[in-house]
Amino acid sequence: MMRTRPLKVALLGCGVVGSEVARIMTTHADDLAARIGAPVELAGVAVRRPSRVREGIDPGLVTTDATALVKRGDIDVVVEVIGGIEPARSLITTAFEHGASVVSANKALLAQDGAALHAAAVEHGRDLYYEAAVAGAIPLIRPLRESLAGDKVNRVLGIVNGTTNFILDKMDSTGAGYQEALDEATALGYAEADPTADVEGFDAAAKAAILAGIAFHTRVRLDDVYREGMTEVTAADFRSAKEMGCTIKLLAICERSKDGASVTARVHPAMIPLSHPLASVRGAYNAVFVESDAAGQLMFYGPGAGGSPTASAVLGDLVAVCRNRLNGATGPGESAYADLTVSPMGEVVTRYHISLDVADKPGVLAQVATVFAEHGVSIDTVRQQGKDGEASLVVVTHRASDASLSGTVEALRNLDTVRGVASIMRVEGE
Amino acid sequence: MMRTRPLKVALLGCGVVGSEVARIMTTHADDLAARIGAPVELAGVAVRRPSRVREGIDPGLVTTDATALVKRGDIDVVVEVIGGIEPARSLITTAFEHGASVVSANKALLAQDGAALHAAAVEHGRDLYYEAAVAGAIPLIRPLRESLAGDKVNRVLGIVNGTTNFILDKMDSTGAGYQEALDEATALGYAEADPTADVEGFDAAAKAAILAGIAFHTRVRLDDVYREGMTEVTAADFRSAKEMGCTIKLLAICERSKDGASVTARVHPAMIPLSHPLASVRGAYNAVFVESDAAGQLMFYGPGAGGSPTASAVLGDLVAVCRNRLNGATGPGESAYADLTVSPMGEVVTRYHISLDVADKPGVLAQVATVFAEHGVSIDTVRQQGKDGEASLVVVTHRASDASLSGTVEALRNLDTVRGVASIMRVEGE
Repeated sequence: MMRTRPLKVALLGCGVVGSEVARIMTTHADDLAARIGAPVELAGVAVRRPSRVREGIDPGLVTTDATALVKRGDIDVVVEVIGGIEPARSLITTAFEHGASVVSANKALLAQDGAALHAAAVEHGRDLYYEAAVAGAIPLIRPLRESLAGDKVNRVLGIVNGTTNFILDKMDSTGAGYQEALDEATALGYAEADPTADVEGFDAAAKAAILAGIAFHTRVRLDDVYREGMTEVTAADFRSAKEMGCTIKLLAICERSKDGASVTARVHPAMIPLSHPLASVRGAYNAVFVESDAAGQLMFYGPGAGGSPTASAVLGDLVAVCRNRLNGATGPGESAYADLTVSPMGEVVTRYHISLDVADKPGVLAQVATVFAEHGVSIDTVRQQGKDGEASLVVVTHRASDASLSGTVEALRNLDTVRGVASIMRVEGE
Repeated sequence: MMRTRPLKVALLGCGVVGSEVARIMTTHADDLAARIGAPVELAGVAVRRPSRVREGIDPGLVTTDATALVKRGDIDVVVEVIGGIEPARSLITTAFEHGASVVSANKALLAQDGAALHAAAVEHGRDLYYEAAVAGAIPLIRPLRESLAGDKVNRVLGIVNGTTNFILDKMDSTGAGYQEALDEATALGYAEADPTADVEGFDAAAKAAILAGIAFHTRVRLDDVYREGMTEVTAADFRSAKEMGCTIKLLAICERSKDGASVTARVHPAMIPLSHPLASVRGAYNAVFVESDAAGQLMFYGPGAGGSPTASAVLGDLVAVCRNRLNGATGPGESAYADLTVSPMGEVVTRYHISLDVADKPGVLAQVATVFAEHGVSIDTVRQQGKDGEASLVVVTHRASDASLSGTVEALRNLDTVRGVASIMRVEGE
């Protein structure tokens, strides 16, 4: 039975994602109405530059006054695809105050202020959904917070940034250096003119904070996420990875500690074995591995960005939020009851691949090995290559804490026989 | 804010899945309560053989009278993990009549009577959830019916039976024949004593019917699903596949026609390129590819069976259904509004790999090629191998309808120069 009064949607932002949301709302209006149980109507579109022609959007709906739009009082759902902290945050808060539910694709805002926004949603009895904020079209938020609601997630390990995956995949397949691969990504539109947010891991860190929070039912702030970009990954690192039967990916890793009492979240480049499903994620695709007690290992794969894929996620949320409104109910909100300790990077336990430039003379290996032993870091393999009085030493460790490894590296730098630490890379996914 | 009166759960069946559901309900009781907003209590367990000791389950809860249990009237949610058509169907219907919502893992029943069961749920204002019915722990039903609710799904292509994937993977990696690989699967517990439901594709066909129904918002009955088992796949087929750069998988394929007006659902062995993500799905794992207008290509991967993974899916549904009860709402029910035509196998369009045993004499290829042409089936490649007056001819076609291909094969069998049709296999995923 179809309700005939339409649900009114205000769209904030009409760029790559917003215009695609508007287009699908129009072209798929009948399907959306059937799936929701009532028609949905685009009631207003807030933009910065009203002069730009927007195909298929009634110019009468376009406004530059986003605040007035969310304050109208007749809006059922606000779709926020502006991005950034302000004015998005104020607009979302105002939307709740005026009775709207909110669908957002804003990872930066959710990672920074998710708790406050969720609280505002609860205060006003409205929904806050944001599937599109993490890994574009890939259903991830909903599976984590609903499908796995009866399970215990121990680990989330994923490629959640398409730009950096494109660059690393290019480096891996062609032997190119970072700059060359970045230039190609920029030329093809996979990297923005200023790629900082992607290549320095800020984007992935925001997603890691969101994923960790949902997976562990614990508030994880952006500041809690250790972040290391991938601008210093070299062609030599890829050669080292290949010798190990690995490739290099920029990973977001959210882990529960062995005793279950604490969690960590981090973003950094890491070697992973070629046999790991994440190793074969090519180009700008995203994929996320989830490990839980009962389900075991799950993987979710798909396009992590782009107008259409992101719009697909936004519209899935829009349908859910509209159904909830018709039901007079709300969906699952923030779940932070577990309130686990979020531990710093030093407590992360993993394996390491370390390349040292050393003097090529007897006793160096013994000295280096002693330093590892003194810091409680157990060595798995060592490979030594010498030429002309210089040598390189590649050490792969067993599992050790990041703090122990840092101490080891500091001590190694102080050895006369160690000329330099050429690279340190974590080894994951084994 | 926690409600203190617990939600009461009746468990029907306490085998591999049921006992795991009961175990997790006990060990994770606090987490479940926090996530639901109220405690859940195991109020009764219906079994066939009460004498079997069930660790961790209060013997006072165990009963052989499942009907009396679902009729008690104080049950909030019935979890049905008995399997099969009866008594599961009657018990579920009775559960709705007595005010309970239902979580089921019963693919056979859902595929056969999903529409009637959904109608019963709606009539009584209750939920029917069944994530566990398809691909075990892999979130698939929820992503299809919720995450992609604003998108248009065009294709679902998946490995949804772990037993057959284990057998085919073994044949691929060791060169073993079907029987040898089946024997190993049986010895390792991956195949049941009577493997018919798996190897003849009945299990996968039930899942295909469920997936097609949800993906296309159209009722797809089990009878609508074309089904071909994998018992006739040979080591020679795997050698042919390798020559094509392919492997062989038992696939469930649900497709929307190009014009969008009709859909098909089918299960059969098929060659897929090694570069396709489904080709590297090993052992008893499942994986499902979903292609939609806006999201593009998504893949979901994980364990498709087993007590714990299936229990994970059941408990995710249990949490959702309990939340809905507390909200006084219901989740999305059956969506069959699109009511598309479900076309028969003859209308499926795909490519074919055909091996013919032919007489090794001039003119045979011309005769064979003429038969393909007469039936409108365009040939992509032909490979001829001759020895001792006999020869084999391997033909790979362009895309053609299954009806045209069937006509072609019938006519080929009538050629004097064709001694036999050694194998016909569809080529998918290109």
